[in-house]
Amino acid sequence: MKNITILGSTGSIGTNALKVIKEKKDKFKVIGISGYSNFDLLKKQIEEFQPKYICIGSKSAAEELKILYPEKIIYFGDEGLKNMGALDEADIVLTAISGSIGIEATVEAIKKEKRIALANKETMVAAGEYINKLLKKYPKAEVIPVDSEHSALFQSMQGSGKNEVKTLIITASGGTFRGKTLEYLKNVTVEEALKHPNWSMGKKITIDSSTLVNKGLEVIEAHMLFNIDYDNIEVLVHPQSIVHSMVEFVDSSIIAQIGVPDMKLPIQYAFTYPDREASTALEKLNLKKLKELTFDEINSDVFKGVQLAFKAGRIGKSMPCVFNSANEVAVELFLKGKIKFLDIYEIIESAMAQHELKAIETLEIIKNIDKETRKWVYENYGRD
Amino acid sequence: MKNITILGSTGSIGTNALKVIKEKKDKFKVIGISGYSNFDLLKKQIEEFQPKYICIGSKSAAEELKILYPEKIIYFGDEGLKNMGALDEADIVLTAISGSIGIEATVEAIKKEKRIALANKETMVAAGEYINKLLKKYPKAEVIPVDSEHSALFQSMQGSGKNEVKTLIITASGGTFRGKTLEYLKNVTVEEALKHPNWSMGKKITIDSSTLVNKGLEVIEAHMLFNIDYDNIEVLVHPQSIVHSMVEFVDSSIIAQIGVPDMKLPIQYAFTYPDREASTALEKLNLKKLKELTFDEINSDVFKGVQLAFKAGRIGKSMPCVFNSANEVAVELFLKGKIKFLDIYEIIESAMAQHELKAIETLEIIKNIDKETRKWVYENYGRD
Repeated sequence: MKNITILGSTGSIGTNALKVIKEKKDKFKVIGISGYSNFDLLKKQIEEFQPKYICIGSKSAAEELKILYPEKIIYFGDEGLKNMGALDEADIVLTAISGSIGIEATVEAIKKEKRIALANKETMVAAGEYINKLLKKYPKAEVIPVDSEHSALFQSMQGSGKNEVKTLIITASGGTFRGKTLEYLKNVTVEEALKHPNWSMGKKITIDSSTLVNKGLEVIEAHMLFNIDYDNIEVLVHPQSIVHSMVEFVDSSIIAQIGVPDMKLPIQYAFTYPDREASTALEKLNLKKLKELTFDEINSDVFKGVQLAFKAGRIGKSMPCVFNSANEVAVELFLKGKIKFLDIYEIIESAMAQHELKAIETLEIIKNIDKETRKWVYENYGRD
Repeated sequence: MKNITILGSTGSIGTNALKVIKEKKDKFKVIGISGYSNFDLLKKQIEEFQPKYICIGSKSAAEELKILYPEKIIYFGDEGLKNMGALDEADIVLTAISGSIGIEATVEAIKKEKRIALANKETMVAAGEYINKLLKKYPKAEVIPVDSEHSALFQSMQGSGKNEVKTLIITASGGTFRGKTLEYLKNVTVEEALKHPNWSMGKKITIDSSTLVNKGLEVIEAHMLFNIDYDNIEVLVHPQSIVHSMVEFVDSSIIAQIGVPDMKLPIQYAFTYPDREASTALEKLNLKKLKELTFDEINSDVFKGVQLAFKAGRIGKSMPCVFNSANEVAVELFLKGKIKFLDIYEIIESAMAQHELKAIETLEIIKNIDKETRKWVYENYGRD
């Protein structure tokens, strides 16, 4: 039996993780869940999975939970999340909180040498250099990616030696606006941007997918997770989202991981790795209905999300953190209707241009850069 | 340095193997080569690679070689091939002789517990049950498939446990006549049948590819190599021959091996396994030019090669041997213009129908069934 803590249980990854666990109750036990503000769903999850530890965003909500569930241990806020990452009873910590706040809980889980099922991109993007140093210090901790692309890369490289990997080929659906022109993108609405063709995800990540910033974050994450040069990471548009990513080896052989677009597989794989297990929760791809898989290059003149990430990644140090924080605020401003779609790129570019590069030696530095970048973006683009 | 014997060095696989070796002379040394009748090419290969052991089809040709290369050890005929399979100095024996005569040399190599780089389909098809028993008796012997499909399956399953494999998905180019009707196939010529869209191969195998008997042989071979039920082996038409085959695991994740259609990769992989090595001999797939991969079901009403193989495979025992031997003669008769294209299926079916099933306990039994089947086909279809 593996004990699992789910940070972000009310989100898209979190609810899928609970579906995975529900089908394999003989193998997995939920010992902790955290939600930010979706009180009702969190309550439902508590009643169904009976975790011992619970964390919620606000103190008042936590107090309400304490009254409802006096036998449970209830935490709240950022400190609460750190406690949740550090639970001794946990075998696996699934970090499915989007945004920079997931980093600290992940750090706690690494220090406790847990398996981290990593679904928080920002951890490896903003804090990748720091996390990798930490992983050397705590060698029993292991990070298993949950992102469908990184899980695909991870699965594809299992049969070969690390030094035999030559190129990581990350596939991209191309997002809602694939094939559109700059002219078209100038005036797209929030509603249009939120329609994703293949994946059902949260708002932030759906916008990131439409700007291809999501793919950019994945490029940096892949670099950090697998220690592969940026020169050897490629992005390929694959609108069907069936080939989740590929690894090219030194002998030119390519191994690809293929499946339906469903997060439950990478989540379960992060739980069962290095084994695989059958589950009724997992959907089978009907290969006979596959018919056609297409691949194409990114139109980087229109969708700058990937090239900006490569730029930030190659500069390294604090720049990926700036790329990420600037994007987070930009997306928030776009969702609030305060900026236009293409302004997201402009904001990332200007935030990167104004930034003074720093080495990432402590988590404090990352937190400060995150704060400063957010402040700078709000001040320059967020005023009414 | 790995010492390699190449059985069938003048054929398509053999010459590709020599190209692989030529680019990695620091890793591989040719110690033996065998050719059947292509004297001039064999001579060229002897001079370039200086193998210590040589085998050729006829006694007279062997005597000629002895005069030309008095310092070499020269064998000939079937006995010679058996000697070549059993060379003590060899680390790897590449069995690239097509037809049933490759089986005996492979048996010798297994008895000497060598690595067999298996490019002779018939070994596992006609003698699979016998070979698998033998492999249990000689556990240090290992069979690494060289066929592009089986190498792809083998590569795809490296990262997971054997019990985690659920389905083998063998891809098929569909052959020269993909999309054609029964009516069209009735009168196709030998020349038309010999035009293969993606792979440059020998005549026999090109015809087998156009009848899909080749895919049928691969289904039986896959069953024998990987111990997977016939119910869990699928064939999918994939005209681009880029996805060389796929493995579906119990968790519904699919791993595929992808690359240019070039036998040099699976050959080298069988030599370097479990490692991968860069080589200038190996062609890189330009993923950006990939554009489109298509998949479709086989039209089994027209192309019966696969369904007949499933039938023979499921019956088991001596039936796969009959399937193979009947097909070998049928293809020979077709190439000689003695029968029509669709008669190949009829011959296989009738040969299977008249056969009295036997257990495959010795190599003698296989040889006898092979002989009897050939005789039966010649007598019933091969007369002028």
